[in-house]
Amino acid sequence: MRRISILGSTGSIGRSSLDVARSHPEAIAVAGLSTNRKIEDLARQVEEFKPAVAAVGDESLAGEFKDMVEGTETRVVCGEGGLRELASLDGADIVLNALVGSAGIMPSIAAIRSGKDLAIANKECLVAAGEVITREAAAAGVGLIPVDSEHSAVFQCIRGERRADVSRITLTASGGPLKDMTAAEIGEVTAEDALKHPTWDMGQKVTIDSATLLNKGFEVIEASWLFNIPTDRIDILIEKKSIVHCLVEFIDGSVTALLSVPDMRLAIQYALTQPARLETRLERLDLAGMGDIAFDAPDLEKFPCLDLAYQAAGLGGTAPAALSAADEVVVESFLAGRIKFNDIYSILKEVVASHQVMGASDVDSVMRATAWARERAGSLVKQMGRGD
Amino acid sequence: MRRISILGSTGSIGRSSLDVARSHPEAIAVAGLSTNRKIEDLARQVEEFKPAVAAVGDESLAGEFKDMVEGTETRVVCGEGGLRELASLDGADIVLNALVGSAGIMPSIAAIRSGKDLAIANKECLVAAGEVITREAAAAGVGLIPVDSEHSAVFQCIRGERRADVSRITLTASGGPLKDMTAAEIGEVTAEDALKHPTWDMGQKVTIDSATLLNKGFEVIEASWLFNIPTDRIDILIEKKSIVHCLVEFIDGSVTALLSVPDMRLAIQYALTQPARLETRLERLDLAGMGDIAFDAPDLEKFPCLDLAYQAAGLGGTAPAALSAADEVVVESFLAGRIKFNDIYSILKEVVASHQVMGASDVDSVMRATAWARERAGSLVKQMGRGD
Repeated sequence: MRRISILGSTGSIGRSSLDVARSHPEAIAVAGLSTNRKIEDLARQVEEFKPAVAAVGDESLAGEFKDMVEGTETRVVCGEGGLRELASLDGADIVLNALVGSAGIMPSIAAIRSGKDLAIANKECLVAAGEVITREAAAAGVGLIPVDSEHSAVFQCIRGERRADVSRITLTASGGPLKDMTAAEIGEVTAEDALKHPTWDMGQKVTIDSATLLNKGFEVIEASWLFNIPTDRIDILIEKKSIVHCLVEFIDGSVTALLSVPDMRLAIQYALTQPARLETRLERLDLAGMGDIAFDAPDLEKFPCLDLAYQAAGLGGTAPAALSAADEVVVESFLAGRIKFNDIYSILKEVVASHQVMGASDVDSVMRATAWARERAGSLVKQMGRGD
Repeated sequence: MRRISILGSTGSIGRSSLDVARSHPEAIAVAGLSTNRKIEDLARQVEEFKPAVAAVGDESLAGEFKDMVEGTETRVVCGEGGLRELASLDGADIVLNALVGSAGIMPSIAAIRSGKDLAIANKECLVAAGEVITREAAAAGVGLIPVDSEHSAVFQCIRGERRADVSRITLTASGGPLKDMTAAEIGEVTAEDALKHPTWDMGQKVTIDSATLLNKGFEVIEASWLFNIPTDRIDILIEKKSIVHCLVEFIDGSVTALLSVPDMRLAIQYALTQPARLETRLERLDLAGMGDIAFDAPDLEKFPCLDLAYQAAGLGGTAPAALSAADEVVVESFLAGRIKFNDIYSILKEVVASHQVMGASDVDSVMRATAWARERAGSLVKQMGRGD
């Protein structure tokens, strides 16, 4: 039995994780749950899964939430401290970090320091603080288990292999909702257009990051930390059906790939139960019935954010943290209609160019870079902003 | 350092194996070599690789061969006894069985009984005597390592996985040289047409078996023994580029695949060095540059031999041995121009239909079925024979 504590249980990944737990009560128990502001959803989850602890990020809602779950055995905690408490819960074996953005960094470190295996859906925490997190995990002897489908795929493909035998990793991309548009059309894209992802059902932030392909850039950096391989040996290929999730090339020239229907629950379940696999009722791949599979190189002219992520990775240190933090601000601004789609790249490029790169071997440096980048991005949004 | 003894070193697989040994003298030493009749080729191999023992299958050529290698340190043996000696050589860790047809059965058993790991390129020995060979290997505690590219691919895909988690195996097929012909055209195919394999460079017997797709049927039976999975959970899909070699589905619905350029040396090298992988200079897969990959179900009406193999597997016991032995006779007859392409199926179907299936748990039963089937196929060839 694996006991899990889910940071961000009311988001897309969090709800899928609870679906997995619901399907396998014999294998997965829920020890802790959290939300930032969706307290009604969290109250329903508490009722169903009866966790020992539930955390509410927004302290102003904690009182209301306590009333909702009165009479249950669940203890309510709140704020940043509450999230850290949830991350280091005695009753949990694994912490699933499904928070969005840099808010996930400190809880990840708290989980590792309390000896929990960490299942990471919050890619920003590795993008920004990969050096700290991988070092802390190694020191604590805990596992870092990917939840992103591409990274879960790589994790599965290198199972049983020697890490030194891996020569290249290719992460696949659906291409996002804008892949068939011209550069001119992309310039006019609205938030509504960009939120229509062709194959994956995800949260808003990651869907916009998919539209710019910056999400793939973050995944490259994430993979680099998870699998200890430089970003210049990690490629992206567009595979529009989203059924091939990764390709891993070995030194002999053999390549292993992981395929499945695009359903996050597969990667989540694997993260929670690995190395065991459990049966699922998910649809099986029917390759004979699905037509061609094609791989194409991404168009970096149309999607320059992908290249920007490689550049930030090349700069190293706090550059990826700055990029990631700035992206949180610009995506929020784009969703709110304050900037245009192409402004996302312009602002991020300017943030990276003006960032004073520092070493990222301690959390304080990462957090300072994060704060600086948010502020810098915010002022650039104001300069460029068309509305508001 | 792995010391290998190669049964059938002058054939296609044998020569590729020596290519691998030549590329990795630091990892692979050649302890034994053999040929049936190509003594000049064998003499050149002896000169280059200096094995302790060389075997000549055809005893009438042994004297001539001894003269050729006089003055070398290589000891010459001959006939069936010589092959068995080579298979149980003290100086070898692994025996690579690259013989063709049922001639490989007894040497495989000899290798296992003398405690050698057995790398199997001779699929007929598992098709005919899979029960005996897998039982003997388990009893002796030796490994059965596939050399066929599809089976090597499966072997790699299930590395590190629990066998019970495998739900289905799909072996791929290029479709063979006749895949785009109509049924009427296939009826008129000559040996020359059928020998033009689109993607793989192989021996004549296996190339004709690829044209009928019976080779895939044998591979299904071989996979069933190697991976302990019933044939009704093993599928064939046509993948014309021959770059995807297998797909393995797990109980959770995830599928792993192994891809590479179609080059036998990859699977051979893996068999000889696994679990280690060694660098190769083989071409790398360039998926972005190669166009679509498509998977199609095989056309059993056009290629009924594939279905016949499943039927023989379903009958069990000595039925696959009979099919395999009869196939050796009919393919030879087809290559000699004595029967037409469609006669291959007609004769094999008749042999399977008239075979008295017995248990195949001992070598004698297998050998009796083999002898019966060869004779039966021979007399059917005479009845149907158009020429000679």
